[in-house]
This record gives sequence, structure tokens and C-alpha cells, in this order.
Amino acid sequence: MSPPTSTLFASVLRRHHHRNHHLRRLRRFISTYSLPLSHPIYTIWAANTSLGKTLVSAGLSTSYLSSPHRKFLYLKPLQTGFPIDSDSLFVYSKFGDFFARNRPEFSVFASNHVLKASGLASKDVFRGGSDVERDENVSCGNGVVKKSEFFLSNSEMKGSVLGSEGLVRGGFGVERDDNVSCGNGAVKKSEFFDSNRAELSVFDANRELKGSVLGSEGLARGGFGVERDGNVSFGNGVVNLGLYEERRLQGTENWEMKGYSKLVCKTMYGWKEALSPHLVAERENARVEDDELLGMLKGCLGIELESEKGGAFCVIETAGGVASPGPSGSLQCDLYRPFRFPAILVGDGRLGGISATISAYESLKLRGYDVVAVVIEDHGLVNEGPLSSYLRRRVPVLVLPPIPKEMSNNLMEWFQEALSTFHSLEEIMQSAFVERTSRLHDMPRKAHDFFWWPFTQHKLVPEENVTVIDSRCGENFAVHKVNNNVDLITQQFDACASWWTQGPDATLQIELARDMGYATARYGHVMFPENVYEPALECAELLLEGVGKGWASRVYFSDNGSTAIEIALKMALRKFLFDHKIVSDDLVAENSESHVDLKVLALRGSYHGDTLGAMEAQAPSPYTGFYQQPWYKGRGHFLDPPTVAMCHGVWKLSLPQEIETQNPSLEDLTFSLRENIFKESRDTSNLADIYHSYIWKTLHLIIDSSGSTRTGALIIEPVIHGAGGMEMVDPLFQRVLVKECRNQKIPVIFDEVFTGFWRLGAESATEFIRCKPDIACFAKLMTGGIVPLAVTLASEAVFEAFVGDSKLQALLHGHSYTAHALGCTAAVKSIKWFKDSKTNHNLISEAMLLRELWDPDLVRQISLLPAVHRVVVLGTLCALELQAEGSNAGYASLYARSLLQKLREDGIYMRPLGNVIYLMCGPCTSPQSCTNLLNKVYTRLEEL
Amino acid sequence: MSPPTSTLFASVLRRHHHRNHHLRRLRRFISTYSLPLSHPIYTIWAANTSLGKTLVSAGLSTSYLSSPHRKFLYLKPLQTGFPIDSDSLFVYSKFGDFFARNRPEFSVFASNHVLKASGLASKDVFRGGSDVERDENVSCGNGVVKKSEFFLSNSEMKGSVLGSEGLVRGGFGVERDDNVSCGNGAVKKSEFFDSNRAELSVFDANRELKGSVLGSEGLARGGFGVERDGNVSFGNGVVNLGLYEERRLQGTENWEMKGYSKLVCKTMYGWKEALSPHLVAERENARVEDDELLGMLKGCLGIELESEKGGAFCVIETAGGVASPGPSGSLQCDLYRPFRFPAILVGDGRLGGISATISAYESLKLRGYDVVAVVIEDHGLVNEGPLSSYLRRRVPVLVLPPIPKEMSNNLMEWFQEALSTFHSLEEIMQSAFVERTSRLHDMPRKAHDFFWWPFTQHKLVPEENVTVIDSRCGENFAVHKVNNNVDLITQQFDACASWWTQGPDATLQIELARDMGYATARYGHVMFPENVYEPALECAELLLEGVGKGWASRVYFSDNGSTAIEIALKMALRKFLFDHKIVSDDLVAENSESHVDLKVLALRGSYHGDTLGAMEAQAPSPYTGFYQQPWYKGRGHFLDPPTVAMCHGVWKLSLPQEIETQNPSLEDLTFSLRENIFKESRDTSNLADIYHSYIWKTLHLIIDSSGSTRTGALIIEPVIHGAGGMEMVDPLFQRVLVKECRNQKIPVIFDEVFTGFWRLGAESATEFIRCKPDIACFAKLMTGGIVPLAVTLASEAVFEAFVGDSKLQALLHGHSYTAHALGCTAAVKSIKWFKDSKTNHNLISEAMLLRELWDPDLVRQISLLPAVHRVVVLGTLCALELQAEGSNAGYASLYARSLLQKLREDGIYMRPLGNVIYLMCGPCTSPQSCTNLLNKVYTRLEEL
Repeated sequence: MSPPTSTLFASVLRRHHHRNHHLRRLRRFISTYSLPLSHPIYTIWAANTSLGKTLVSAGLSTSYLSSPHRKFLYLKPLQTGFPIDSDSLFVYSKFGDFFARNRPEFSVFASNHVLKASGLASKDVFRGGSDVERDENVSCGNGVVKKSEFFLSNSEMKGSVLGSEGLVRGGFGVERDDNVSCGNGAVKKSEFFDSNRAELSVFDANRELKGSVLGSEGLARGGFGVERDGNVSFGNGVVNLGLYEERRLQGTENWEMKGYSKLVCKTMYGWKEALSPHLVAERENARVEDDELLGMLKGCLGIELESEKGGAFCVIETAGGVASPGPSGSLQCDLYRPFRFPAILVGDGRLGGISATISAYESLKLRGYDVVAVVIEDHGLVNEGPLSSYLRRRVPVLVLPPIPKEMSNNLMEWFQEALSTFHSLEEIMQSAFVERTSRLHDMPRKAHDFFWWPFTQHKLVPEENVTVIDSRCGENFAVHKVNNNVDLITQQFDACASWWTQGPDATLQIELARDMGYATARYGHVMFPENVYEPALECAELLLEGVGKGWASRVYFSDNGSTAIEIALKMALRKFLFDHKIVSDDLVAENSESHVDLKVLALRGSYHGDTLGAMEAQAPSPYTGFYQQPWYKGRGHFLDPPTVAMCHGVWKLSLPQEIETQNPSLEDLTFSLRENIFKESRDTSNLADIYHSYIWKTLHLIIDSSGSTRTGALIIEPVIHGAGGMEMVDPLFQRVLVKECRNQKIPVIFDEVFTGFWRLGAESATEFIRCKPDIACFAKLMTGGIVPLAVTLASEAVFEAFVGDSKLQALLHGHSYTAHALGCTAAVKSIKWFKDSKTNHNLISEAMLLRELWDPDLVRQISLLPAVHRVVVLGTLCALELQAEGSNAGYASLYARSLLQKLREDGIYMRPLGNVIYLMCGPCTSPQSCTNLLNKVYTRLEEL
Repeated sequence: MSPPTSTLFASVLRRHHHRNHHLRRLRRFISTYSLPLSHPIYTIWAANTSLGKTLVSAGLSTSYLSSPHRKFLYLKPLQTGFPIDSDSLFVYSKFGDFFARNRPEFSVFASNHVLKASGLASKDVFRGGSDVERDENVSCGNGVVKKSEFFLSNSEMKGSVLGSEGLVRGGFGVERDDNVSCGNGAVKKSEFFDSNRAELSVFDANRELKGSVLGSEGLARGGFGVERDGNVSFGNGVVNLGLYEERRLQGTENWEMKGYSKLVCKTMYGWKEALSPHLVAERENARVEDDELLGMLKGCLGIELESEKGGAFCVIETAGGVASPGPSGSLQCDLYRPFRFPAILVGDGRLGGISATISAYESLKLRGYDVVAVVIEDHGLVNEGPLSSYLRRRVPVLVLPPIPKEMSNNLMEWFQEALSTFHSLEEIMQSAFVERTSRLHDMPRKAHDFFWWPFTQHKLVPEENVTVIDSRCGENFAVHKVNNNVDLITQQFDACASWWTQGPDATLQIELARDMGYATARYGHVMFPENVYEPALECAELLLEGVGKGWASRVYFSDNGSTAIEIALKMALRKFLFDHKIVSDDLVAENSESHVDLKVLALRGSYHGDTLGAMEAQAPSPYTGFYQQPWYKGRGHFLDPPTVAMCHGVWKLSLPQEIETQNPSLEDLTFSLRENIFKESRDTSNLADIYHSYIWKTLHLIIDSSGSTRTGALIIEPVIHGAGGMEMVDPLFQRVLVKECRNQKIPVIFDEVFTGFWRLGAESATEFIRCKPDIACFAKLMTGGIVPLAVTLASEAVFEAFVGDSKLQALLHGHSYTAHALGCTAAVKSIKWFKDSKTNHNLISEAMLLRELWDPDLVRQISLLPAVHRVVVLGTLCALELQAEGSNAGYASLYARSLLQKLREDGIYMRPLGNVIYLMCGPCTSPQSCTNLLNKVYTRLEEL
């Protein structure tokens, strides 16, 4: 669909109204993060609710804290049924009971902390669960400690009950006093506390509780206010609770003698009703967005683990089943995915539990999690047998003794009985952690030793410069790093779009994961010629209705851009031979020789791939030298094209020297707006005539020069030359060129491998040059960036040049995985996803264009920087050529290196093309993310 | 690892002892099948046990049978807790109740049939659940009818209670009387039965009950005998029960006036204990193998649906959750996969149910099932909201009213209330069925219109010859066909291994599905150069320890065989230039020109891919003609190689003419055993010298002919020329050739794209030619046949020719998806799978070779057929050249067409290479399957 010019770009900046937005929640993850990898951090998942996740967590705490100088961190991000149910309190409490019973020599400082809760849930904290009577004077505090009988039930604890007095004093003491610096008296008034120990504790507490004080206010003012006052926006119904209790579990020996350990239990968010978080968040008007939740989780981990020099161990316990929704509605397995902590799966030992466990396991795998162990309760059904068999014994299945059903049971015998299993589990988790980190440490060396990277001078990549990519989530890499001897996983935006292939946001990535699983299970790969199967057919249909609409009628599948180009050239040359009667059906059938020298017409600076045929269609370049490809001849006529770029704030046209010298008086060569460059009205301009005569002369010259040499095809990258240095070619020039080739019956090939599928802001770049080819090649972004797949589209007239009675007339070119089901399935999903405004929020449906992703003002500012020679911005691409001279310019230049190194520290992964650098996002990336990237680049460029 | 010659082949036929066989059950599916697609057949799955699958089935029966002239088939393959629990009886009974309550004008003939049961369960059938007192005189019969009070509770049923008298008479009348032809008196003595109706019924009953009579005997003799007599092998503890009841539910009008409908309920297997089938099968010594179960299911469907001209509708209800094990231990979602019936998922409306439902859905998708609708019971939690959102509203989620919990409730109000939901569900299922079949019907036309198949003359493929592949399962395609206007899905063995890519059995396919999902979710695709990520590294490690062991040290990733070859050539030619000092580092850095004409040495008949560079390395052929590739020059010297094949029962060597004429007196050119061909002792033979001088002369000739022309590389397909016609090249010749090139410092490339990864019975074909290359290319089977991925392995010496200070010295060749995570992940899994005897039962671990897959006697028999010119059998390949002359020979020949058409009817999908046809299996395919294929081929060849 080609919209009228006037609205084409004018509408780009208009904000798109999203209907059906509930169908897909825009997931905005915290923009960059860095997670400690210094200690084991595990997520405890379960196949369903009530399978014993918290027992496993508590059990791990008993196992891990059987030695001094250790810290066990238990995090419960989402707690519903609060405060009646509190898993962190359970762990805190059960560990206390267990400790009391098995009292070792050393002591343990234990704490339980509830950071935030819905207004409704926090009411219950004060009032013991009863209804609040709209009393504005009720301030925050810790209602739980008052009820915590277990403190008293263990006689040896009496001395170590810590801060409950202070808690009452401080906790209730807040009463809207901004000067109270810590709402939690437990720390301030820790009379039982050793002084140097207290310091540390106060420090920790301060960091966390500062927020709590604010929260206490919010609780009184805003938290409870939400029910009465719609305008009170504070906390979105979630209030800072800062409920905190701490005690010392005294070992048999003086803790100074034997040391101590720490148990830190934290609940991040509590809701009152014992239902799924998404429901209670809605019902209690206490929604929490994913990025907020992840931010807090990251914060908790940072505070508790980053400075921890000794042994530490963390478990994060999820709520419900693996795919139970979180408070925003995102499934928890999706929600926590950016962190991709290794997983422990608490399975189901009951009847039906094999199935439930396997399915939950598969859901975790479908999100890219590594499951380190499965734990089930023994129900006498030996479910561990089939589970082990399914897991091929690679993931251990541990069995816990039957859990007493009587509520009165304090479980101490059970914990004792299960202890050896928990020890095994801990050992498995510890060694998986060690294995993972040591593997991560080894990877750069091994990569350095075993890989032969393409386009890479290995001598220039020392081991320490190798980037270890642990995973990707949407647009971001998770990269392993060692900073000051501390292992981290940090996030980097994949701004090279992994060689321009990438499109998926985190949601599409997960959808594709399911689809790839499905396609493998349904088809694997099946033979294509003379056959049909759904993904190949649907893919072909979508291509012909989409990028091929109005001209293409046939789809030829292959594996990558280069093969698609080789096929396109074979198609075009045959078509030329037929159209120009150089060959007849009979000759083809006999496969006889001919002595016509067929060349292609191409633009200097364009690039079409690395196999010999594709290389022959490009002008000599560093890629084509004798020592790269001794067989390269350059079977083309290569035209210098006019180019456009923003230079110092203005879009400027640069003409090839030949045109310039012949037209010395050419007037205005700038454009006030980018959209003017694409206007069809330019067809009637003086420049169009100049272009035409330049092209006509060149074509004429070729024909004259040798009778046996013919120009058999035109091949261009529409609008942008990618690998050639991100040059924008004047679209008017390309349009005039295509028209002239049409006139002379020279088949026209568009190489849309780079430009296709929204890379430039439209599904096809034909939207910009406003003319159609006879043949076009697509690859890269077509599958959304998951697997290689390429297509060559052709018009029916081209196809007909291969139809005849003999097989030898057919196009005898193919690759083993032609039209493979996974590639076609990924393409079908991605093509649909990107062009549907329900899933692609950047899409302006009316115009079938992406909105402007790169802030125009910021782009202009960047172009004004002295370090910047030119800028090209279109669609998902923002390319910059740096000012460089001599050996700093060109493909082999290392000029941009240190700049890019700094940007990687900023969380942006870029790759240079010599002195050209670029940012490239996906079709669904939010403009906010792009602005964030641009700002960082701007700052670094300013420093240059 | 290179084993000593003597054991190399001798051990191939030895049967391999499988340790740890319980880790992977060998799944032998019924060899070929054909399933009706004339009526909707759905599988009802559930997220867990007790979620209401049977209610949904019963509900669908009430909805579907609200009109006359219809047949509703309910199948319960696996029933545990039997006979106390009987879902088919429940459907039968509830439908009866519902019918009675809503009595329409027409009648319904309803039946319930239990075909087989464990001995233990069948005891309960007679004795009403009480223990049997080892009374040998107890014979079979229908104990259930006696207890079926519901027959009497509905007053309007009295007249239609059918056969219960006869049942008692006949059922118990068997008493070891072989002459009793039907154990089920219900049919024989159907006094209430209309005569012509009875005929049909008797017919049906006979077909099914013949077995039952035997079974009744077995039941008395064997069934109960198993407990007492270990030697009684009958039924493996499973006995034919033949429990049958039938009745006419009389509508308000005479059925003759208004017509009637049919409800057929069947339980296939019953076990006594109410546990998972895998447990009860073991405990009750009543195991059922997967192929037996599928065979019976297929039988039931055939009997009930194939002849059904009117409307029919079938649901197959599974047991427990989607991944609950069946009686053999196979998970049900795997077990039923070969049939891939569309699915209805009964989800979970409770707390935690969103997660359970999503996970179950994902397990189904990970097996390639299409889920048409999700049904949940309303528990007031609005689980349908998040489920619909997850499913993006593309799969409808239906909500059933809350199910009464009191056991006394006869559910009639509930069924009434739920009826509209069941109507909607039925409508969804009906229209999905219509959509599917109409899409299948359209596919050939659309494929014909939109595709441009590679290597295919479209004019020779009429629409009706297009094969519609609905799915694949392991080695088999499921193909849609229309026979006599009836839609079918039939199975065809993929004997072309989909262009030689395929390796997975059904189990590996499902493992790969999970891995592909995981890799997508964890990585999608990430940038490779200068980076490292786990799958790429692990893949590289496995390659260097496996196919590259002992020589390779670097892995260069690309997309397909053709690109791998282009890379290999670039590597080899550069290495040659360096070794022969034609080029210096400085020259490379400056990328200057040279005028050396570099050629490759290759064998005539070898084939290396379709991109121009790869084509240049092969001799002129139909693929390289001017009208195929006008730029082809043939930059090689092409040697005629000696070949070996079994001709008329003897392995025979054929020498190229040049050798033959120069050595007229050459003696014995046959081998008594294939293994003799590969013996290293041949190195000292006269023939080795002859080969050497032939090669030396050729190489000498090249050097002399032109000073500027150099032979820069040797490229060979070791042992077998694939696309060139499945010729076996004398391995001695290749070994001599490689050695001579080594002597002359000509880099050696092995093209193992076809031969690698067990295609020929060893992981690398170097096992057969017993020498190593400098560079080798792998692709195809490397990923197990799931996605395209290729590698070029190189020695460190080759790599070093590219190391220097300038980027321009690096190998500047790459493809967007270089080392893509999915490909590497698939390769890692497949490489490990094939070389592990726990997963590959064909592997002879000691020899690291596959056992002989093609029965040697049968192969010899085939070679003796007059229609067969030669046979080449090695590893997974069995190729035959048909006797053909003139235009019947060669690549363009259509000679084999009609033969292959017949073989497709036999369930074998083959593709010809002109007059060469071949069978190709996977590395794990059982020799039994291969024998089955060979037998069919033998029969068809005999007919020629």
C-alpha cells in the first residue's frame, strides 16, 4: 500500500492510538541492569500452588546455615493472602524453630522484612486483620510482631527477641514526622545488640528503610487514601510498609567465639486476598509494573549480595505456578526472564503430578531458563521414575518425605528427616553455580582458541576483549563480566541488531520460542520441491500479499541473502536472454554454450553477499581483493550514485563527480525535511533529467564498447547501502535508473536483504523509492531474527523464462533446507507481528509505516557535533559517520574502537563499519529506548 | 578413533547390547497407517487429572446428538480404576439420562464397549469388584450390565433396554466352547431389535467381538491364569474383555419416521487400580506397547468412521494430564503424536490453574499439536481472562458452569446449563475441522501458484502430483490424500531423508523441539564475531573432538554446504598462496592484484553446491550450463575417478578409461566383501601405484600447461559422490590422491556435507578413506535435520595464513546468522545423540560405527534383479541405479517416476536422481524398518 505523499511522513510523529492494548502489555524492563553473579541466586518455581516451594526454601536455609559466616537470603517478591500468609515469615520462623532444636555452636542473626503491601493488606497488619474504620490517624508499624507467638514458644529465644519493643516505639512513632529518619525502631533502639554488629545492621537497615519512612507516610496519607480519594496517586495503592523484625538466634557458644551467620528474609509486595497476584493487584487497586518489581528485586539483591565477601546463597520464591500471572498480568516466567536466574522446580508427587511437573518444566525451558533440579514430595507413586527418565537423568529429581497434613504439626521432625535431601539439593545448586561461573570464565579463552570468527582479524581481538553473551531478552544481551574480581551479568542493548537481523521484543521472542518448538515437533524439516506444507505456504502468501504485493507472484526459498542474490541473478540473466532472444527453448533444453558476456549494472558501494556470484555483482572493495577471493572478476558496470545525509543539521545531497562536473551550475542541494527527499514530485525536476542522461549515457557506452557484452540485470539496494557504509542513495536516482532499465528490458533486482521488513520504517523499501522490481531478495529480519531464511521473489514473467518441457530448463539451484519449516514459521509469526498495530506499537496503521523512533532534535544535535561528519536516520537505523581522515577512514579503520568500548560500558553494544557507527533497534523498540541510546551516544561523542 | 581393520566391519552385524535401555524406550510405531479425515476426530487433553475431560466429552455428545442421522464416537483408550471408574460408561450413561430428560423426536442407538482389560480389572467385572476365588469355571461376560441401575431408573428406557437378558445368557454361556461364535448375547439375541438394524449391528459387533470370544477364553484360561501359571503368555496380562452393552434410546416419535443417531462409546484398555497407566500396567502385569495401542486406536477409528457416510464426530479422551505416562511409560502427548489429532484442552479454573493450563498447552505445542479450544470450569477466578490474553484470542477459551460437588447430583441441570457452551465448543470444533480440510484441499493449487520449487520443472508437476505434508514424526511424513473422495492422512517413510538432512527418530525430534524452544527463548540469535555464547562454543568443542579430531583446530560457521565450500575454497587458496610464497603479508595488507590463475583439483561427478564459487569447483554438468549459470567457467581440473558398486551380487571396481587403456592386463577387479574395499592393506597393491602415477601425471600436466596456472586446492567428497549419482569412489584412489596433494603442498578439502555425521555409518567419512584433510565442510545432518547450519573446519596452519596486523588479512566472509544459536543447539543435541549408544541403538560403541542397517542378503537379491544396474550400500544409504539407456539415463531422466509413484502408495517417499534411486534412513532407524523398506522396493523392482 502506497499512501499519499502528503501524509507519508507527516503522520510518522503522530502518536498512535492503541486499541486492544490489553491484548499485549507493553513490557518496559528497567533499561539496564547489572546483577551479581558472585553468589548462587536461584529462583524456586513450582508446577502449581501449594506444592511446598516455601518448605524447600526453608529447608535450604536449614542446610546452608549449618555453618557460621554465611548469609542466606530468602526473597519472596509477591505474597498474596498477606499478612495471614507470609512465606518469608514462615521461613524466618521455621528456621528459628529448627535452629532452636538443633542448636549449633554459632549464632544466627535472622530478620524478616516486608517492604511493600497493598493498602488493604497493610490495614490488616495494624488491625490484626479486622477492617480499618477510616481513621486517618492510624500510622504505620509492624502488626505482625505483636502476634508472633513463636518468639515465645521457643524458650531459648527469649533473650534474642530483638527490637520488638523498639519496633512498637519506633514503628508507631512515625506519625507524619518527616524528621524521623528510620521508621523501624528495631534498629535504632537495639539494646540487645552488640555495637559493631549494630553499625552494620543500621547501615543495611538505613539503606532499605529510608524508603520505608516515606512509605509510612504514604501509608497513612496515600496508602489508605486511595480508597477515599481518587486523586491520591501515591503508591498506586501499594504502600511502603517497612515491616521489620530481627532477632539473634543464640548458638551454644558465644557468637564472638564461633562466629555467626545471617538469615535475611524479605517479602517485597504483599496483598491481602489469597488469590493470584494479577487478581489481587486489580481488586486491591495495588498494581505493580514489571519494571518496578524487577527494579526492587535487583535492588534487594544488590544490597544483600554485592558487598557480601563471605559465603552467601539466595533463593527467590515465586508465587503459584510457573506461569501464574504477576501483578501486572505478565506471567511470572516471562516477568523474571530478563534476570534468567537458574531454577529449582518444585514438582508434583501426586497423581497427575508427572504431567504437571513435565509441563511446568517445559514452560521454564520455553523461556530459556536452566532448571538445575526438580524436587517432589513423596506420595508413594514413584513419580521420580518417569520424571528422571524424561529428564534423561541430566537434571536430578529429589524426593522429599511426605509432608504431615495436620496443621498443628510444627514440621520439625519433617525438616530433620528431609535435611539430607536439602543438603543434596544445596550441593547440586552450589556445584551448578560453580560450574556455570567457571564455564563463563573459560569461555573467552576457548572461543579464542576454537572459533574462527568471520570478518575478524583474530590478532586484534585479545582474549579479554571477547564478549561472553549469556543470553538475550528482546533487544538486550545479558553479558558476563568480571569487574574488580566480582562476577556480574550486565545488560547491553544490541545496537548492531546482531548483523541487522534482530527484530523481536521480549514478548515476540517468547512467542517465537513456542513457535520454534511447535514447528520442530510438527515438521522438523521436510522436503520442499513438489511438496507443500503449511508454514511454507503461509509464508509465501504473506510475502506475496506484503513485500511482493502488486508485482511478485513466485517465491523461491533459500538460506541467506547471498544465496538469494545468486538465485536472483540466475533468474534475471535467464530472463534477459529470453527477452532479448539470445536464447531459445531448444537451446536451453540442450544446455548448449553461448558466448555472450553478461554483466550486471550496479551501484558503487552496494553490497550483496559473500559467495562468489553475489560478489561478482559488486564493485571492487576490501571484500573482493585477490587475497580474499582470487576468482573475483567484478562482472558489472558500477555507477557512482548520488547520496543524501544530514550534515551539520541539514539534509544534503552529494552528487557523483561526473554529474557535478557536467552540471557546474546545479542549484540547491539541500532538503529542509527528510520527507522531501522521497517526494514523487521530484520526478519532474531538472535533477531527474540530469540523472536520466547520466544513466542513459552509461548504458549506451556499455552496449557500444563490445558487441558481445550485454547488461543482463540491474541490482540495487534500495535507499540505503548497508555494508557499504550506511549511505543513503538519492531515491530519485534509483527510481530514474529502474525506469530506464525497464525501458531497455533489463530485469531489475532489489536487494532488500538489509532494507526489508521495517528496517527502514516500511515493510519494503519500495515504499520509499516508489517503484517495483522484477525480482527482490529478502532475508535477515524476515524471520524476526531467529533463524536463517531467505527468499527471492519474482514476477510471473521471470518465472515463465524457466518453464518448459525439460528439467534442464528449470532453475537448478537449491539448498538442503530450502523453505525449512522453522524458518517459515518464524517468518510467518514475525511478518504478522510487525505489521499488526496490536503487537507493534510503533506502527502507524494508516500509513503502514513506523513512527519516528529517533528523536529528530537529538539527531540534529548529534549531526552538529564536530566529531560527526554525517548522519543517516531512517526507520530503525541511525548511522553516523565520524570525522576521520587517512587510515582512520574506510572499512579497515579502527578509529571508532575506543568510542564503542565506552558505549559498551554504558550498556550499548555497537559494531563499527570502519569509521561509520550506527544504532539499530527493532521495529517494536520504544522511542524512549531509542532516545535513551541516543543520549548516551551524544554524551560520548561530545567527549571525543 | 580409527579401529583396527579386522574388527571394523566384522562387528557391524553383531547385535549391540543396550545398557541403560530403560533410559530411552525404543518406540516402534505401527509401520504405516492411514487415518480417516472424513469426520472430525479430536483428542481431549487436560491440564491435570479430574478437571472434567469426561464431562466435556459427554457434553459434546449431548450437543452433537441433538439431531438424527449422526454418529458420535467416544473413545477412551486408557481407563484406570476400572470397572469402578469407566468414563465410557459415564458418557453412555449420562447421555442416556440427558436424552431421557430432553427426549427429542428421533431415537439414539447407544452402546458401550470395553475391549480389553488387565486380568485384575476383568476379575472385578465378573465379581462386582470382589475377589475371585480362583474358580476356573468362571467364564467371561458382562458384569456391569447387572449393576447398571440407571437402565431402570429412567422409566422411558425400559423398552429400550436391550440384550441384558441375552447378555446374561450369551455372555456367561461361553464356557470354553470354541464353537460359540459370539460371546456377547446382546447382539445374537436382540429380540427387541429391528431386523435390518440388527444386521448392521451384528456385523459391527462381529468385527469387534470375534476377538472378544477368543478373549473370553483367554480370560478364563489365560487372563486369570497369569496369576497362577507363569507359562501362560496370553495377552501379556491384558485380556480381551469384550464387555458390551447396547440400547435404543427411544425418542418421542417412531424412529422409522424421524430417523435415529448413534452413540458409540468404547474403552480400549482397562486396569483396576486408579493410578497412572504406567504404574498399573506394571503392577497388574498388563503392559501395552505403544504400537499395539495405536494399532487398536486406528482400528477403532477405521471401523467406526471409514464406512460412515453421514455425519460423525469422534472424541478420544486421554487419561490424566497431557504428559501423564501411558502404559508403556511413553508420555501420552508423545504416544499419540504420530496421529496428531487436533486437541481440546480442558484447563484448570482453580487457583494456580492459569499456570497449569498454560504449561499443559505449551507441552501440547511442543509436540506439534494444534489446540483448537481451551475449556475451563468456572471457579469464580476469571482464569479465562489471562488465558485468552496469553492465547492472543486466537484459541477460544470456553467456560463451563461450576460442577456440583455432591456425588449424588445426577448433573442433569448442569448439562442443561452447559449445553450452550457445548454447542459453541462443537461449532468451534466443526469449523476448525472444515477449515483444516478445506485448507488441505487448497494447498496443492496454492503451492502450484505461489511456489517456485528448486530443481523442479513446474510444467512437469501437475497440481494433483503435489504432495501435501501435514507433519512429520521421526522418519515419517504424514501426507494428506484424497482416495475415492475420502480424505485421509497416510504415513510415508521419508526415504530421501528430505535432501539427506534427516536424522531424528520421533524421540529426538521431540527433544529437539524443546531445545529449539529453549534456544529461541534464551538467545534468539546473537552476534557471533568477537563474541562467545554457550551453544556455539559447545558445538565447536564437539566438532573438534569429533569429526575434526586429530587435525582440525578452528571452526568457521556458515549457513549451508554451498557457503561452507566457498569459505573452504577461500581458505585453501590463501593457504596455497602463502605456502608457495606467491603472496606476502604486505601484499595481502595492501590487497593488491595478482595474475596467478588458481584452479582446484576435483573429481568428475562430485558436487559441491549451487553458489557460483562452489559450482566453479565442479566439472561441467547439467547444473552448470550457460543457461543455468552464465558465469560458470569450471575453474578446476577434473579427474575421472575409479568407482565401486555391487553389480549382480558382486562388489566391482570400474576404472576410468585412461587407466584401463594404459593397464590392459589388470587382474581381479572385484571384492568378495565390502569391507575389503576399505582395507588399508590395499595401499601396497599394484593398483595403488597405478593410481599414483595417473594422479601424478595429471598434476604434472597442469603445471606444465601454463606457467601462471596453479592448482591451489584439492576438493573431494570422500567415498560417495552424492548429487552426482550416488557413486562410490574407490577409497584407495582418494587416499592416494590426498597423499600426493599433501606432498605437493596443495591444501586438501573434504566436502563432508553429504557424507558427514553418520550418513555413511561413521561420524566422519575419514574413517573410510583413512586420511585427514586440511579443511572440511559439514552441514545437512549436523543439526539432526532441523535447521540450516554449516561449518568449515580448518587446521591451525590454514588459520594462520589469515592472521596478521590488518583486518584486510582476515577472512572477510560471513553470513548474518553465522553460528546462530538454534543451529548450534540442534547440532549439539544431535551430535551427542547419534554418538551415544544409550540414545542411538544402532551404534556399535567400540567401533564407533553403525551396525548394518540394510539386510545384506536382501541387498544382494536386489542387485541380482534385471532392472538393477548397480547398488551402493553404506551406512544409512542404499542406492540403486536402474538399468536405463539413452534419454532414460542421466539427471534429466524421468525413467524412475512411475516406480516411485508406486512406492509412495506403499508408504515410501523417494526422490530420484535421474535413473538412480535411493533409500536413506536416519542414524537411529531400526534395521527392521530398513528391511521393511527394502522388501517393498524389491517387490516393486521385481514387477518392473
